[in-house]
Parts: sequence; structure tokens; C-alpha cells
Amino acid sequence: MHQAGVNAVAQFLAGIVGLALLAWTVGVGTEVVGARFGPAVTGVLQSTLGNLPELFIVVFALRAGEIVVAQTSILGSLLANALFVLGLAIIAGAWKSPDGLMRFKTRLPNDTTMLLMLVVFIIAIISTSLSLDDAASGNAMTISVIGAVLILGVYGVWIASYLRAGAAEAPAVEERHAPALGFNAGLAVLALAGIAAAFVSDWFVAAIDPAVAKLGISKAFTGLVIVALAGNAVENVVGIQLAWKGRYDLAISVVKNSVSQIAAFLYPALVLISLLFTQRLTFGVPTEGLVLVVALVFTALAIWQITGDGEAAAYEGLALVATYAVLATVVWFE
Amino acid sequence: MHQAGVNAVAQFLAGIVGLALLAWTVGVGTEVVGARFGPAVTGVLQSTLGNLPELFIVVFALRAGEIVVAQTSILGSLLANALFVLGLAIIAGAWKSPDGLMRFKTRLPNDTTMLLMLVVFIIAIISTSLSLDDAASGNAMTISVIGAVLILGVYGVWIASYLRAGAAEAPAVEERHAPALGFNAGLAVLALAGIAAAFVSDWFVAAIDPAVAKLGISKAFTGLVIVALAGNAVENVVGIQLAWKGRYDLAISVVKNSVSQIAAFLYPALVLISLLFTQRLTFGVPTEGLVLVVALVFTALAIWQITGDGEAAAYEGLALVATYAVLATVVWFE
Amino acid sequence: MHQAGVNAVAQFLAGIVGLALLAWTVGVGTEVVGARFGPAVTGVLQSTLGNLPELFIVVFALRAGEIVVAQTSILGSLLANALFVLGLAIIAGAWKSPDGLMRFKTRLPNDTTMLLMLVVFIIAIISTSLSLDDAASGNAMTISVIGAVLILGVYGVWIASYLRAGAAEAPAVEERHAPALGFNAGLAVLALAGIAAAFVSDWFVAAIDPAVAKLGISKAFTGLVIVALAGNAVENVVGIQLAWKGRYDLAISVVKNSVSQIAAFLYPALVLISLLFTQRLTFGVPTEGLVLVVALVFTALAIWQITGDGEAAAYEGLALVATYAVLATVVWFE
Repeated sequence: MHQAGVNAVAQFLAGIVGLALLAWTVGVGTEVVGARFGPAVTGVLQSTLGNLPELFIVVFALRAGEIVVAQTSILGSLLANALFVLGLAIIAGAWKSPDGLMRFKTRLPNDTTMLLMLVVFIIAIISTSLSLDDAASGNAMTISVIGAVLILGVYGVWIASYLRAGAAEAPAVEERHAPALGFNAGLAVLALAGIAAAFVSDWFVAAIDPAVAKLGISKAFTGLVIVALAGNAVENVVGIQLAWKGRYDLAISVVKNSVSQIAAFLYPALVLISLLFTQRLTFGVPTEGLVLVVALVFTALAIWQITGDGEAAAYEGLALVATYAVLATVVWFE
Repeated sequence: MHQAGVNAVAQFLAGIVGLALLAWTVGVGTEVVGARFGPAVTGVLQSTLGNLPELFIVVFALRAGEIVVAQTSILGSLLANALFVLGLAIIAGAWKSPDGLMRFKTRLPNDTTMLLMLVVFIIAIISTSLSLDDAASGNAMTISVIGAVLILGVYGVWIASYLRAGAAEAPAVEERHAPALGFNAGLAVLALAGIAAAFVSDWFVAAIDPAVAKLGISKAFTGLVIVALAGNAVENVVGIQLAWKGRYDLAISVVKNSVSQIAAFLYPALVLISLLFTQRLTFGVPTEGLVLVVALVFTALAIWQITGDGEAAAYEGLALVATYAVLATVVWFE
Repeated sequence: MHQAGVNAVAQFLAGIVGLALLAWTVGVGTEVVGARFGPAVTGVLQSTLGNLPELFIVVFALRAGEIVVAQTSILGSLLANALFVLGLAIIAGAWKSPDGLMRFKTRLPNDTTMLLMLVVFIIAIISTSLSLDDAASGNAMTISVIGAVLILGVYGVWIASYLRAGAAEAPAVEERHAPALGFNAGLAVLALAGIAAAFVSDWFVAAIDPAVAKLGISKAFTGLVIVALAGNAVENVVGIQLAWKGRYDLAISVVKNSVSQIAAFLYPALVLISLLFTQRLTFGVPTEGLVLVVALVFTALAIWQITGDGEAAAYEGLALVATYAVLATVVWFE
């Protein structure tokens, strides 16, 4: 047991180094791709790769029948990306901006708010029904499946329109700043690094459980904070790195597409995938987890309020990080 | 019993045909009026006529002492108009727009959001008090009467300012596109069709009860979805028809004025009218109906987020329709 | 006892006269300062002085171990300023505007919304935890202390940036309109009147308790409405006076800075100060006070929706006042 704990901590530290190296590689690959495509296409590509670890983690959890772990992992990723990662990217971007304001196009932030609100509505209404223990609460699975199909439909129509509009955009990174790597090589680097990130995350996450058990950290905190941050380490580093370099639209695209994708693609897709397993995933959060529903509602409002006008100051990024820190503190004590 | 069921289904089908014909007539009348007045005045006129059926249905329900039917009918109309009808109008309008965006003036959508938020606040605070069963919950009627007077005051000041500003607007429909019908004839058509719509709706709604009893559909679903859609069939068709023809401001005016009027005029007026009956209508939703309060809060946020910027894409309309579909699914199982 | 009641009513009336005189004096002082500094600096200065009474009242309540009085007094001030005072200032400003719209810069309203949302999130999440009576609810104090430090950090970064930007602004009051008083004299008047206001408020508030006991008014109504209005009488009068004179940006700055300061400086500072006393103040509202949490959420949304676009009409001010009136009615019956 003692040896296992030590090994877990070693694996944990090795995982952090591995993820950091991969994040740097993905950052380079993203910039190379951004020299050919606009921020929209590059962001979707990058966030799809960045969310692969998440997908694997949740599918493994569902197969093992661990519904609570699966759900808290999805919601944790959502909250970590929308509050912590976005907040840090805004702080970095506003810091480097001459007038202290990070500026970006408003369309993606507003679309992300819309998609997140749709999903949060479905989570809130099913969770309310569950906490009232009414007639509809017995059919949370059926309602979730219908909701999942509807969300995927909205996401499909949105992403088609978003990519179509994005295809006409100027490259996200001006040619003269682009790294020396060729486009195809960059794409290959991105794909390989994305897949490697999935495996490293997975391996890393496996080490978390024994490590936190040794340190006496609660399951809820592990799922909602540690796994969420570890599983999204790559977006985290890439988004902040891009904002720091002044590539504001690309940074926002990477982070916001990640949020939209988790909420409106990954979660509903996993609800449908869970039909193949004996334990099913729904959009309903049990009553003891109502603080998460409150946190989701405020997160949707906060990203709308802060990024909806196309500019953000450092104190707004700080407010997002503070919101996440308070949530993490509450979860720590659960 | 069997014969009655068959008759009810026949009446149901006849009602649908009658409402469709009337909707087409009202659409023609609205365009004729719109060739003289701006979108604001035309929209208020049209939605006042369109809400007549609603008024009759609720007064009849109050007289019969059916408070739950009365309240779910009002809230159902509100949700159906703000989510389903608006969503379909946006899909139709965005579909016909060359660049996929339906554009309209922002003032009415923002004013509608403001009025809806005021009413939803009063509903939420009284409902919270009821579910806590605290001292104030025993005075829900008194608080509702005070709230109703205040809402009517705000609505009165608003509509006066809205119509004054609207009187100066250019006609909603350019002369050369206007139908061959004269203005007075158009106004008469609109008035007659509106009154006929009230009677047909009423007759149609009477047929619903035995029909749904035969089909085994729940009371809640009937009130919140079927009656709400049937009672608003005319706005529904007219709003979508106008959006499809590219008359974006007029379409938004018809749908949004309908939402404002139900929330900030019809509901508070009916609260005051109910003082004449033995059973009183309040703004408080009982605890078992808290999903409706959650749905109202998200509806106010959704129409604000989607229409507040003066443009809407097809996927935003789809998100509103999806929200309504999930709500209808939840209510189906109640 | 009878004599005490009569004295209290006399003290009450004397207090109203004293506060009105002081409000007029502070108004003159604010305009003099506004002839030198921009609206930002003037507003911060004025609202800091205006919130002194609040600070004293709450510290005295904490020392006496009256946690409920302390908390309702802070939340009541917040709601009174954000709904009632802002609403009246908008009505006054829109009334005097030629086109019926009060116009102002959007930055401060949006920053106030952001700060208020952060604080309301922390209040909502801790209150949810308390009403679930879960593991985290036992640590409400620790979570509140961490939250308080984070909020003060965000407020500190914000106010530094706000004052820096405000230092470059043109004077809030054009020279030719400025009163005959010199700048230093104006500053002295403002400081003296502010300190006097603190003492008069305090003396006045002491008279409230016996006066309302005699009149049979509930504790909750006294704390949330009467003390809140009395303790903020100066901002109230000054904000409305400035709006009436067409000094829109200065009026908004005085009222909004007051809201921001109570939410993001006074409340967290008092949470930390309460560590020195035996009874501690937290951000958690007990379950029986959930209507306050609902009211805070809607207040944050209402000021965002109404002032976020930089213009407000009289009916929007009226809606804020109506919201406050309904809340006061609910609290009256608690």
C-alpha cells in the first residue's frame, strides 16, 4: 500500500511533466494550423483533440458503472474550462494588451452562452423534478434521451453554420509570425500530440485515485477539480499561451469551443452512449449535488456577462477564477 | 361515451381547419393594416386580438372555480409564445434571409425581456415563499394584488411610450407589396377574424377535454401544451408567415407583443378580475409546479440572450424550440 | 414606555429633517468636487462617504451579537440602492431628458453587474449548501472567509483600474454650471457632511427600534426596508437630485458605486471584521430567508438588463421600483 502510494505520486509527477510537454507541442501545432485556417476552424480542431481524454475517461467510468464519477467529470470539465481556463486566458490576454482590454469577436462567446444555457436548462429542469420526486422524475432517462437528441441537433446546425462562416476567415496567425514547420507537418504534430495527450491523461488520471486516497482528499473534489483540471491541462496551457501571445480570437476560440463541445456534444453523446451500458447517464443531478446546478447557472450567466460584449479586462478574468476557487472550496468540504 | 369521443375528435379536426383558415385571414388583415401603420401599432393591434381567446378561456375557467387550469393556461400560453412560436418565426425568418440572419430592431425584444423578468420575479418570489410555507405565504393573494397593480402600472407607462414612438414609424409593409384590399376593409377583416378566432378557439378547446381523455393524455400536458398551442394558433401562424415573407420587424412585433401582453397585462388583469369570483388567482405556483418557475426563468433569459442583440440565426430559433420540446416532454410525464 | 415611544417618534422625525438637510449639503459638495474630477472619482468619493453609516450600523450590530440584523441590514442596503434608488434616479433622469431616455456610459453599470454577480454567486452557493444541510454547510464560515478575501482581491484590482481610467476623464460638471464654492471648501463640506451623516443615521436608526415596536412593524421589514432606506437616505437624495439636473453619468456613478461598494467591499470586509467578535457573519442566508437570495439574483439580472445598454427609460426605472415594492410587501408579511 505504501509502495503503491509512492508509485502513484511518482506517476502523478511524471504525468504533469508529460502533459506540459504535450501542451507545448499542441500549442505549436495549433499555431501552424492557424496560419492556414481562421480562428473558428482551428479552434474546433484543437478543442476536439483536447476533449478526447475527457471522452475516454467518461466511457471507462460508464463501463465500470461509476455514474457519479462520469457525471462529475463532465460537469467538472465544463466548469473548469468556462471559469478557470477562460479566466486565466483573459488575465493573460488583458495583461499583454496595451490598453488592458482583451478584444475578440462576439459571435462565438454568444453562441457558447446559448448552447450552455440550453444544456443548463435541461439539467436544471430534470434536477428540479428529481428533487421534488414527482411523476416526471421517474422518467429522467427518457427525458434525457429526448433532450440529448435535441441538443445534438442544435449543436449540429450550429457547428455547420460556424464552420461555413469560419472557412471564409483570414488565417488566425499572420504568415510572417508562423513557425518554420510546414502545414502538413503541423497537422500531423497536432493529431499525434492530441492522441498522445488522451493516453497520458488517462494514465495520469489512473494515478490520481491512489494518490488522493493517500492524501485524504474527498472523491467530489478529486472528480470536480483535480481530474477536471488534469484532463483539460492541454486546453488550459494552449489557451493561456495563445492569449499571452496576443492571438485573442484564437485563444477565445480554443477555450469557448471546448466549453460548447463538452456541454452540447460530449455530454449528450455520452447520455446516448450510456444506453449501451447497464448504468445510464442522465442530465439529472441528484438533490445532494444541487450546488453544482447553482454553479452551472451562474457560470452560464458569468461567461455571457463578461465575454458577450467582445472585450474583457483583467479583473473580469480574476472574477471568473475567484468564482471557480469558491466552488472548489465548497466541493472540498463536501 | 364512444360516440362522444368520436364527435370530439371530429370537432377537434374541424377546429384545426377553422383555425388555419382564420389564421390566413388574420395574416392578410395584419398586412393591410401594416401598410398604414408601423410594426409597433400593427403588432399591438394584432396581438390584442390574438389574445382574446386566451382571455375568454381563463375567465370561463375562473368562473368554474378551476384555478389550476386557469393558471397553467396562462403560463402555457406564455411559454408557447416565447419559446415555440418565437423559435419557429426565427427559423422561418433566418431561412429566407440571404445571410442566414433575421435582423430586427432591438427595442421591443429588450422591453419584452424587462416586462417578463418583472412578472417572473413576482412569480418566483411568491412561489419560493409558498414552498417555504413561511408567514408571507399566507398572504400570497394580497401580495399578488399589489404586484398586479404595479405590473399594470409599468405596462401602462410602457405601452403609452411604445405606441407614441411607434406612431412615427414608417408603415410596416411597403405600399407596392400591400394586398389589393382597402385599409378599412382590412381593419374590418382583422376585427371580425379576431372575434371569430376567439369563438372557434373556445369551441375547439371544449372539444379537447373529451378528446384527450379518450387518448389518455395528462391534464397538465393538455393545459400547458395542447390548449396553449391551440389558443395561440393564430399568432403562431401569423408570426411565422410574416417572418417567412421577410417582414422581420412585424413578425417580431406580433410575437413579442403577444408575450408582453400575456405576462404584463392579461395575467395581472386576471388576478384582479378573479377577486370577483370565489376562487382567486395568484402569482404563486404551488411547490409541485416548481419546474414551471424554472422554465419561466430560463425563458426570460433565453429570449433576452437570443433576441437582445437584434439578430437571430436558425440554430437560435431551433434552441428555443428544443427548450420548449424538453419542457413539453417533462410535463407529459407529470 | 409611552413617553419613550413618543420620544422615539420625535427623534425619528428630527432624524428625517437632519438627513434631508445633510443630503442637500452632500449634493452641493459632490457637484463642487465634480467640477474638478470626472464622474468616476467623484462617484467613488461620494459613495464611500455615503456608506459610512452602513459600516457603523453593522459593526455595532456585530458587537452586540445581532448577526441577523447585521446581515439583513447589508442585504437591505444593497437591494434598496440597486432597485429603489436606481429606479427613482432613472425615472427622474428620463423625465428630464428631451427624448425620454437617460443616457450614460456602459462601463460602470457592467462592472457593477459583474461584481454583484460574483457576490450573489457566493451567497447563493453557500445558502444552497445550508438548505441542503450537507457536509459543506458546516464550513460556511471558512468558505465565507476565503470568498471574502477573493472578492476583496477582485474589487481591489477593479477599483484601481476604474480610478486610473477615471482620472483622465473630463470633469463631471462643466465649469460654468459649477456652484460658487471653491474646490477645497467643497471637499471639506463633503467630508464633514459625510461624517455628520454617519452620526445622524446612527442616532436615527437607534430611534427606529422603539418607534416600530410601538407601531407593530416586523423586525424583518424594519431591517430590510426602513433601516436600509434611512441608512442610504443621502445617496438616495443625491443620486435622484443629480439625475434630475441632467448629470446622468455622475448620478449613475454615485448610485452604482454605492451598490458595488456594499456588495464587493463592505460585505466581505465585515465578514473578515466579524472574526474579531464571538458571533461571525457569513455569506450564507438561512433557509427561511431564501426569498432574499431569489431577490438578489433577480436584482443582479435586472440592473444588468436595464442599465447594461447605456440608456434607460422611465418605465424601466418604474419596473425597478415595482420590484422593490413587491419585495417590501413580501417582507412586510414575514
